Amino acid sequence: MHLRVGLAGLGTVAQGVLTLLSEQADVISARAGRRIEVVRVASRTRREEAVLGDAQFSHDLASLTDPSEVDVVVELIGGETSASELVQSALGAGQSVVTANKALIATQGQHLAELASNNGAALRFEAAVAGGIPVVGALRTGLAANRISRIAGIINGTSNYILSAMANDSADFASVLAEAQRLGYAEADPTFDVEGIDAAHKLAILSHLAFDIPTAFDAVYCEGISQITLDDIAYAAELGYVIKHLGIARQDDAGVEMRVHPTLLPKKALLAKVDGVMNAVMVDGHASGPTLYYGAGAGGAATASAVVADLIELARHSEPAPTVPTVAKSLRSIDDAVSACYLRVDCLDRPGVMAKLASVLSAADISIESIIQHEAEVRRRGEDSWVPVVITTSAVSEARMNAAIASLAQLPEVHGDVTRIRIEGLA
Amino acid sequence: MHLRVGLAGLGTVAQGVLTLLSEQADVISARAGRRIEVVRVASRTRREEAVLGDAQFSHDLASLTDPSEVDVVVELIGGETSASELVQSALGAGQSVVTANKALIATQGQHLAELASNNGAALRFEAAVAGGIPVVGALRTGLAANRISRIAGIINGTSNYILSAMANDSADFASVLAEAQRLGYAEADPTFDVEGIDAAHKLAILSHLAFDIPTAFDAVYCEGISQITLDDIAYAAELGYVIKHLGIARQDDAGVEMRVHPTLLPKKALLAKVDGVMNAVMVDGHASGPTLYYGAGAGGAATASAVVADLIELARHSEPAPTVPTVAKSLRSIDDAVSACYLRVDCLDRPGVMAKLASVLSAADISIESIIQHEAEVRRRGEDSWVPVVITTSAVSEARMNAAIASLAQLPEVHGDVTRIRIEGLA
Repeated sequence: MHLRVGLAGLGTVAQGVLTLLSEQADVISARAGRRIEVVRVASRTRREEAVLGDAQFSHDLASLTDPSEVDVVVELIGGETSASELVQSALGAGQSVVTANKALIATQGQHLAELASNNGAALRFEAAVAGGIPVVGALRTGLAANRISRIAGIINGTSNYILSAMANDSADFASVLAEAQRLGYAEADPTFDVEGIDAAHKLAILSHLAFDIPTAFDAVYCEGISQITLDDIAYAAELGYVIKHLGIARQDDAGVEMRVHPTLLPKKALLAKVDGVMNAVMVDGHASGPTLYYGAGAGGAATASAVVADLIELARHSEPAPTVPTVAKSLRSIDDAVSACYLRVDCLDRPGVMAKLASVLSAADISIESIIQHEAEVRRRGEDSWVPVVITTSAVSEARMNAAIASLAQLPEVHGDVTRIRIEGLA
Repeated sequence: MHLRVGLAGLGTVAQGVLTLLSEQADVISARAGRRIEVVRVASRTRREEAVLGDAQFSHDLASLTDPSEVDVVVELIGGETSASELVQSALGAGQSVVTANKALIATQGQHLAELASNNGAALRFEAAVAGGIPVVGALRTGLAANRISRIAGIINGTSNYILSAMANDSADFASVLAEAQRLGYAEADPTFDVEGIDAAHKLAILSHLAFDIPTAFDAVYCEGISQITLDDIAYAAELGYVIKHLGIARQDDAGVEMRVHPTLLPKKALLAKVDGVMNAVMVDGHASGPTLYYGAGAGGAATASAVVADLIELARHSEPAPTVPTVAKSLRSIDDAVSACYLRVDCLDRPGVMAKLASVLSAADISIESIIQHEAEVRRRGEDSWVPVVITTSAVSEARMNAAIASLAQLPEVHGDVTRIRIEGLA
């Protein structure tokens, strides 16, 4: 008996799924052990360009949740409300679900996994993280024997495109963003990508898989790239670093820490070489050691590749793999995080200022690794001359660094905000 | 009912498997859906340091092939003869098999896969390629919707360690090999690694998975790294390349091509940045686009991580996934391969010699991309002065290049062999 698929949505990814399943039908049947056939399609709008083959079309999503006709519902409508209703009614009816909806899994994953488990259904979401890169499969199966201590990934292509272009073309954030929007790499409202929300969704999902914890999007600390300046990129380069927007999740005996923020990486780190819209995720397993997964993080065809991979895996077995039970673990606040830091401070160009900065950090028990100040960058502002001072520190807790930054900002010799970017050695 | 494992072998990897299964027992049970228990161990020698727990030990491999007591046989004895007998009798008895034995799968994979299929058993070998990197799983599942056009990988850690150290420390092949042997990165007899046989085994397995062809180790063209000189590494660097030992497999309408040889890669290629004993495999899927998998390619713990991943996947399902049928495709000879080439020719330092070289290549319809000759490198030999000339060409068929190289070598102005290293853009 072939695997009967009900497809929700007719956007780019859904059309990619239809194309893959029809163009590759023979190979996919051979690899899956049986045919995979889209029998029903439901979408608000009927797109004429979509090739539906023998599938029945309906405007009603409820047409898919009929277990006598549809074995697997593929949810590609996005958003959280209708998608959630559809997925819940499918799982409730014992139908397996494949989805690319990262927001849905990141926020409701735990509830949906339990629903799947209680109804003997599978819930699969390879496409929800890093598009065509099979990193969900790597965590679910390839690394399943490991205690994972860390995940660090470039998991938002838009942010990576912008930071890469700023570094390579010496263009500022606003102009690169405009170019990215023109090229279709950024949305008209780019907040979701450039402020890290999309990356935080994916990090919550990766952490769920790596650490067997319920998905906990709300516990992810999230900082975007809109404050990164060309000066920061240039200073980082001078210090031997590249600035990347990373999702980082760590597990140790104290619990799990999840954070998304711009990060200075050593130029030699493999992740530092991942440019443009590409994604990459590094996973540290206690037995496997560090492994890295690289590829296209978005795009219709790449995402469809992941959706169909999930369908093939479902077709191979008459019963879904058992749902992995989750364990609530302590989710640590960003205040408990420990990072080396890059600080940029706009200072009065006057003798004794460096000593004052150093003594504030020293009083907070923070070690300075390096200080850069270029006389060529002195700027007049009113009566005074100002110069940016860049400091890197050794590893320090977030709470202590926050206090030190507040003290620095109160110095009369300091102007404006103190820029802080965390540094990861990825050793 | 828990999954009952019979373990053949007590070497480093086998001990790693025992350790993982006992230390991670709870997590592995949760992820697998049931307990995985080693009930029998068979090995020629009983190693006192191995912690067998409740497993029964025997010197007799036949003790494992008892399907009433053992569900899965894990073959970690290596070699081809006893291993083959064990795997065949296990599969014949309907027991599933997990193996890390690349030589076995590369040479007998087709027969063993059929045996597994005919007996309702599974044959899994994640650990046979690239150690702890789950690239077998990526090809079997994550990329299963794709038509794969190319695989290119650094799949032998010893060769990569040697080439990396030659480049970084300007030390020659022999001295780096000796150091690698001292560090345990190379065997006392390093032939298997440095002449590419181990990489060819792995490439045959990757090609089997990517192209659904029978494993065909004998069809892999194989060239090692022992002829690579420091001069070649320096010239390559001057031209913007790094020399890596790659396994490359390509599929197009004409068939499948598999080859292992030293390769010039652009410095900017991600594979060019993979140093030391690390492995990485790039896979080009028509929907996924290029994806890359990086990590430790060897070592007891990393390889054990892959073996246990296979066990977890077997534990998750009561029936094994169906065996993917293979299709015999045309296996192309290296003579049909097309590559840009790097040539190094030891020439008389005399006017008109460059023109002669160029006219030989031109007569063979080969385009020259660049020529390097440094006057500082002129050497006296007898009456004459000799100088190395380095030429890069555009893409040309192997057969035509062989003919041109033979013509070059016959020129009276050319001394000794012509060095040829293929160039891959990995675009």
